[in-house]
Amino acid sequence: MAISRRVKNTLKGASWVRRMFEVGDELKQVYGEENVYDFSIGNPDLEPPASLKKALRELAENPIAGMHRYMPNNGYSETRRAIAEYIKEESGLPFTENHLVMTVGAAGGLNVVFKALLDEGDEVIVPSPYFMEFKFYIDNNGGEIRLVETNDDFSLNLAEIEKAIGAKTKAILINSPNNPTGVVYSHDSLEKLGALLERKSREFGRTIYLVSDEAYRRIVYDRVKLPIFFQYHPHTIRVTSHSKDLSLPGERIGYVAVSPLCEDADELVSALVFANRILGFVNAPALMQRLVAPLQRNSVHVQEYEEKRDLFYNALVSFGYHIVKPQGAFYLFPKALIDDDLAFVQELQSKRILTVPGRGFGKPGYFRIAYAVERKKIEAALPGFKEIADKYRSQR
Amino acid sequence: MAISRRVKNTLKGASWVRRMFEVGDELKQVYGEENVYDFSIGNPDLEPPASLKKALRELAENPIAGMHRYMPNNGYSETRRAIAEYIKEESGLPFTENHLVMTVGAAGGLNVVFKALLDEGDEVIVPSPYFMEFKFYIDNNGGEIRLVETNDDFSLNLAEIEKAIGAKTKAILINSPNNPTGVVYSHDSLEKLGALLERKSREFGRTIYLVSDEAYRRIVYDRVKLPIFFQYHPHTIRVTSHSKDLSLPGERIGYVAVSPLCEDADELVSALVFANRILGFVNAPALMQRLVAPLQRNSVHVQEYEEKRDLFYNALVSFGYHIVKPQGAFYLFPKALIDDDLAFVQELQSKRILTVPGRGFGKPGYFRIAYAVERKKIEAALPGFKEIADKYRSQR
Repeated sequence: MAISRRVKNTLKGASWVRRMFEVGDELKQVYGEENVYDFSIGNPDLEPPASLKKALRELAENPIAGMHRYMPNNGYSETRRAIAEYIKEESGLPFTENHLVMTVGAAGGLNVVFKALLDEGDEVIVPSPYFMEFKFYIDNNGGEIRLVETNDDFSLNLAEIEKAIGAKTKAILINSPNNPTGVVYSHDSLEKLGALLERKSREFGRTIYLVSDEAYRRIVYDRVKLPIFFQYHPHTIRVTSHSKDLSLPGERIGYVAVSPLCEDADELVSALVFANRILGFVNAPALMQRLVAPLQRNSVHVQEYEEKRDLFYNALVSFGYHIVKPQGAFYLFPKALIDDDLAFVQELQSKRILTVPGRGFGKPGYFRIAYAVERKKIEAALPGFKEIADKYRSQR
Repeated sequence: MAISRRVKNTLKGASWVRRMFEVGDELKQVYGEENVYDFSIGNPDLEPPASLKKALRELAENPIAGMHRYMPNNGYSETRRAIAEYIKEESGLPFTENHLVMTVGAAGGLNVVFKALLDEGDEVIVPSPYFMEFKFYIDNNGGEIRLVETNDDFSLNLAEIEKAIGAKTKAILINSPNNPTGVVYSHDSLEKLGALLERKSREFGRTIYLVSDEAYRRIVYDRVKLPIFFQYHPHTIRVTSHSKDLSLPGERIGYVAVSPLCEDADELVSALVFANRILGFVNAPALMQRLVAPLQRNSVHVQEYEEKRDLFYNALVSFGYHIVKPQGAFYLFPKALIDDDLAFVQELQSKRILTVPGRGFGKPGYFRIAYAVERKKIEAALPGFKEIADKYRSQR
């Protein structure tokens, strides 16, 4: 056998997801790509803001000597300074460039954080439903994921989190706005979470970190103001990227920010920089570091996503689907109309609609729709969603 | 304590390297950056070829819709096809785009390869002196490094390699042209290595992979033709990047190529793609994938490095240093003039010359000079090297 047994087993376990993709490919080959409604992957369809394109043009026309060379493993000082200023203003905390590490996207950032924090057997609490890659990021670095259920509206269940915290707990990983539910955790729930983490840290004599995955931080609707995690717990580490706010997912540019209130913040940052190096990222891509620095307050036209959410959500609810109305990200996470989410997703495939079963997010009985696609794709898919809803309504 | 014990111990263990850097920083602050001769890091000083700059300008001026979005985890089909064509011609083997995975540099590629190949306790043989990051890349993924000494001229010691191969051996990692020695392994030694790996694979009933780190593959001198590893062992995996040949180290763009002769090549590639995803790289930076595709036969002006090697090597030899003449990369690895390489490196610091002690490459008693710097820096540093040589000659 060529490959690692661990990887082989995981590849096998994940093979139903591969089957989904293969079904999608087959459908596209049979019906033509334009006749397949692919809501399976969250791949932003909006172009980066004009300011970014302009900055790229200007840099390409006026290249700076050495602009593609290595820089320190934490990234350019200028970029870190720009981000620190922005977070300082946002949080009211004394951030400096020394609290920042530029990373290869948020996925790279999370691996770096877990490498720096975790010893073999350390536990990371993750509210479920959750982005299934988290499990790998924790496992890669010797940790163990500890899933806790959220409430019916996918809000944080503090009682469940409290029960899950033990002597092995090193961190809790919170993703808000959430993939797959689109839920934004409230100020109230975060205040309680902060108090709980501080109480439990004292009880177990061990600092519990709040790792906030804020990949969707600027994709929020209904004038919601995203709470600033740094304000709820001193030992907070933000991991985010410009994949969604600047529509640059393929470029792999993100950052990790360590709260100035963290104990041993200097040592923690040193460990992050070291992890960034030895995990093989080395540094975040140089060109993109330069481009995003002045764009910390920019973002894609979020209203376009909001309009798509409204269109999709309102239509599905009118067809009889049950959905917690998402306030952010670009996902809907409706209840499947039959218990078996995989069978239901396959039903939708008969209408050439591609979605992902809830079991792929630790939540069987649901399915995820990624709507960062052209509006006309959504419109074209709605009749199929309606036919399936009608079919199951008539059977009840 | 905030950080992982493992990381804490490693940070502590590596602290003498940090001291070196800090000394360098102090020197630069005291004497001014222009009066410090920094040969500590291999950070290419040459600009990327004009063809790359032109391609960047053209793409920035004529952006392609969706060019910053996610693509499949193995990278753009067009890029993989261009590289496959190039390697096919070079090796005579039937490479296709399906044997390629685009990666976040060679460091990312090596982590991906070891994640895909290694189970806990598997051993990877590495000839020493060696690039010390290899140890982390192997350890990150549950493997163990098994160092073997090279001959006095830093050529492969086949007898030592044979002794090191056992039931736990999963791979041998070969870096040619070599960092830190600059040595290029010969056709003869690779032929013997291939035969040895095949014999030992049969003996232990377990395929032993040849992982070739070819980061410096185009930086070769004296009209040397770099042997193509794929031709010596069927189970060969090439890991390389465009950091050196196109002078793009900060952009993190490289690839992994699996020999079409590998057993279960399809499964191996699937495992690599999966590893690329779950380790948090997700994909190689999109923009750079596009830019490097048509430049597989291009490279920086290698003669400039060769001239620097000649200048530096000839001068040091005339001062009495003993050096194996390097045929590639941009490093010299002379013998220190006293046994203690750290003390010797500190001596050089008194002349404001920064180098790295051989112990940082598993070879005490030597030191590494990275000469990918401006020619005038080399010229300015030579008197310091001579003074130190004279001092130790007169003491003998």
